[in-house]
Amino acid sequence: MAENQLPDSEFSLDQLQPLIDQMYSRKDEERGVEGTFMWFMEEVGELSAALREGTPEELAAEFADVLAWLATIANISGVDLREAVYQKYGRGCPGCGNLACSCGPEEKP
Amino acid sequence: MAENQLPDSEFSLDQLQPLIDQMYSRKDEERGVEGTFMWFMEEVGELSAALREGTPEELAAEFADVLAWLATIANISGVDLREAVYQKYGRGCPGCGNLACSCGPEEKP
Repeated sequence: MAENQLPDSEFSLDQLQPLIDQMYSRKDEERGVEGTFMWFMEEVGELSAALREGTPEELAAEFADVLAWLATIANISGVDLREAVYQKYGRGCPGCGNLACSCGPEEKP
Repeated sequence: MAENQLPDSEFSLDQLQPLIDQMYSRKDEERGVEGTFMWFMEEVGELSAALREGTPEELAAEFADVLAWLATIANISGVDLREAVYQKYGRGCPGCGNLACSCGPEEKP
């Protein structure tokens, strides 16, 4: 195992933002939100392609890239992704309030 | 506290996929990847708008929505987001292998 590799079992998505911050914050600050959003969109396009015709490994890697660039934008913007998800979805569906959504099929989610 | 609300301190982003699965899997299966991707893109557009001119609360909510729809697509596709991020970024920058990226400025990240 490389010196800087975390064991798989100890890795949590809660570490995504600090990990990406440690890895790329120097470049992120130079690029800003607008430039970073363009990179993010490129990865979203690659995810779309992988969903159509990627191998399972390629597909997983594209999901990781989209998450990494989303984390970078959140870092630049000062948003805590864990807290943001908790506030919006931690109390159930934002539409009906239930843990298993019972909004009608015409509703957004 | 509502009956179905987790305490903030116990919520982890590792719970995002099972939470969204419990909340929306019935609708997700009916909609499929293509229809879900269109909803995801709508949320990406709303994130872009919030980055330009949203309040901090609106911005956090849009990040949460993008993550929720990304989790839904991952659920439908059988991808574990935690494992995907770990495989791609858990050993350092995919380009240079360092925890603090030292790739040249012309490099992708």
